[in-house]
Amino acid sequence: MQPDLLSDAVALRLLDHLHTRSPLVHCLTNDVVTTFTANVLLALNASPAMVVDPDEAAQFSAVADALLINLGTLTHPQREAMRAAIHSARQHATPWTLDPVAVGALSLRTDFAHEIVALSPAAIRGNASEIRALAGESTGGRGVDTTDSVHDALNAAVALARQSGAVVAVTGEVDYITDGTHTLAVSGGDALMTRVVGTGCALSAVVAACCALPGDRLENVAGACWIMKRAGSQAMSSATGPGSFASAFLDALYGLHREVAA
Amino acid sequence: MQPDLLSDAVALRLLDHLHTRSPLVHCLTNDVVTTFTANVLLALNASPAMVVDPDEAAQFSAVADALLINLGTLTHPQREAMRAAIHSARQHATPWTLDPVAVGALSLRTDFAHEIVALSPAAIRGNASEIRALAGESTGGRGVDTTDSVHDALNAAVALARQSGAVVAVTGEVDYITDGTHTLAVSGGDALMTRVVGTGCALSAVVAACCALPGDRLENVAGACWIMKRAGSQAMSSATGPGSFASAFLDALYGLHREVAA
Amino acid sequence: MQPDLLSDAVALRLLDHLHTRSPLVHCLTNDVVTTFTANVLLALNASPAMVVDPDEAAQFSAVADALLINLGTLTHPQREAMRAAIHSARQHATPWTLDPVAVGALSLRTDFAHEIVALSPAAIRGNASEIRALAGESTGGRGVDTTDSVHDALNAAVALARQSGAVVAVTGEVDYITDGTHTLAVSGGDALMTRVVGTGCALSAVVAACCALPGDRLENVAGACWIMKRAGSQAMSSATGPGSFASAFLDALYGLHREVAA
Repeated sequence: MQPDLLSDAVALRLLDHLHTRSPLVHCLTNDVVTTFTANVLLALNASPAMVVDPDEAAQFSAVADALLINLGTLTHPQREAMRAAIHSARQHATPWTLDPVAVGALSLRTDFAHEIVALSPAAIRGNASEIRALAGESTGGRGVDTTDSVHDALNAAVALARQSGAVVAVTGEVDYITDGTHTLAVSGGDALMTRVVGTGCALSAVVAACCALPGDRLENVAGACWIMKRAGSQAMSSATGPGSFASAFLDALYGLHREVAA
Repeated sequence: MQPDLLSDAVALRLLDHLHTRSPLVHCLTNDVVTTFTANVLLALNASPAMVVDPDEAAQFSAVADALLINLGTLTHPQREAMRAAIHSARQHATPWTLDPVAVGALSLRTDFAHEIVALSPAAIRGNASEIRALAGESTGGRGVDTTDSVHDALNAAVALARQSGAVVAVTGEVDYITDGTHTLAVSGGDALMTRVVGTGCALSAVVAACCALPGDRLENVAGACWIMKRAGSQAMSSATGPGSFASAFLDALYGLHREVAA
Repeated sequence: MQPDLLSDAVALRLLDHLHTRSPLVHCLTNDVVTTFTANVLLALNASPAMVVDPDEAAQFSAVADALLINLGTLTHPQREAMRAAIHSARQHATPWTLDPVAVGALSLRTDFAHEIVALSPAAIRGNASEIRALAGESTGGRGVDTTDSVHDALNAAVALARQSGAVVAVTGEVDYITDGTHTLAVSGGDALMTRVVGTGCALSAVVAACCALPGDRLENVAGACWIMKRAGSQAMSSATGPGSFASAFLDALYGLHREVAA
């Protein structure tokens, strides 16, 4: 399968929609990346909110525009909140996105990911090891890092998209985004992004936000990947290390709409 | 009611006190803003500490100079720690400040906020929707954002101050601070502050710190608002987006005492 | 006891090992510093992971290269995860490091620290008050700050090292690192580091990472202190306050290997 490249016109349309609609994204995510995830969404004019009590999470997913489920620091209580939020999201036709952090290597999250992948996620975003594990392949992932190549995981992504009905993004040096029939590829970014915690998790939050926008879902998810890679490439031009990169990356996201529109 | 403007002399006195007394602020706050809240307090030479176990929270509020209760990611276990900390604070005459994040829209926090607002908070800091909801008005708040204007919430703030005995700050483009009889106004800052997560929550922590300082409480709470707006305005002069703004904002807070004193 | 200074050659060897081995550090740490801790480890090419469920924490400590236990926001559920992770680490000969945040002042963490210090930590890193309290001396610590001088705590550090078998680092303006027989001293850094939350906690994570590397453990722990102080001194040359310092500090850590090797 030869993936197509995403056109800049699609990405510009997405940035327009993010700025005019400011989707409210309910993030049930891991403890390490909450701040960065919120700041990434705010930089794109989306509205993040983290509501974590099970009853409140269900209330909130009913009014939010999108829901993100990230398994990075899963606990038993958080699992209850996630179940409640997903069920409420489905009742209210709120699209939800799964980030299966470190699935495959650890049992609680792996079992839970297999449980909820059956609940019609709109999108799934992970690295090669995570996507292969979620598709049922055995993998060599070690914790949150991936030891698999993105391209080798493309078949798993296609299979997972067909099983789950979700748009699946397997991301790394090149991102592949597939609905099981068509596949898009997005390249760019910089290796320095892997030295800043939360860039992948924040991408999943942007994927969740873009699933709430009008247009083709496959293109929207690919557009989320494009936005993050473009901002990463821009941030590199002024960064001297991961500290200045993180700051420049948020600035680049914030200015991207104006820059792409120009 | 025509609010008075806060004088720079009052703000300078507060900055002096923050630097010489370094108040120890016990923060029971939400998961998304812990780091930024601690860094804001540290930049002002205050001492933040987050002690979250119910027994330890009660021990710690007995020795801290101030307590902050922020409901942003409230859970049932956190509610127990907050109750314990508030009761200990009251026994030891430690002033406590309430940030009623998203109260009105969600049930657990709304019920809990109504319960604890009866426990004599020294100050309450929220946006227009939150203050109106806590005062018993119905509101249009959507999650953590506000859809109400600050000025329209001033009557609710006055009523809430009279009911609770707290100094109430309703903040936005202009901040209004009232004890139910007198009202102060603070303007300044920059819209970019709304694109950085935690600026409002960190303001509440500075309010808590200033409630531990000598002087008039109404002026002290208004002074906390003044400090954050002044640093925000300064940070704008060097920022190119929310990433560089957050960094410049902490630098501005750190240098504010010397700059205002000069 | 006259401590020796750590040689730059030892620090360079450590930086080499961090870059080639990229140790996987399982961090059970406090809520306030997770992001900064992860970013500090990533800047040094180590691999952080926070796995917090008790069952998963035990699984993960079996495959990680090192484990960090930081008591800053200890709760009863987190205590269970920590116990499970420590026992798994010991079964798999994974070295574990203790950061006894605010031990002495608060009961849950003090009791727990005394319990686990008997479980053969590889290293212990704390400020003067914390090390004195853990060694059984009464102290004047107020929360997470220390009111004791580092040098006065050196006897306590030596005693604690002999009791526990751990390398003990008591850190402040000068860091002392002792195995109970030999003591090393590391100076440098900048007072601005105390105005950025998590610099001490992140040092403990680097200590944990260095305990997984080949070489003498006493030198490795001292090398971790050296790395952080050197990066702090470098960051000061470009920082104008704690915001820009935090960013420059991560950049300095990232560039340190190349700079020291040159």
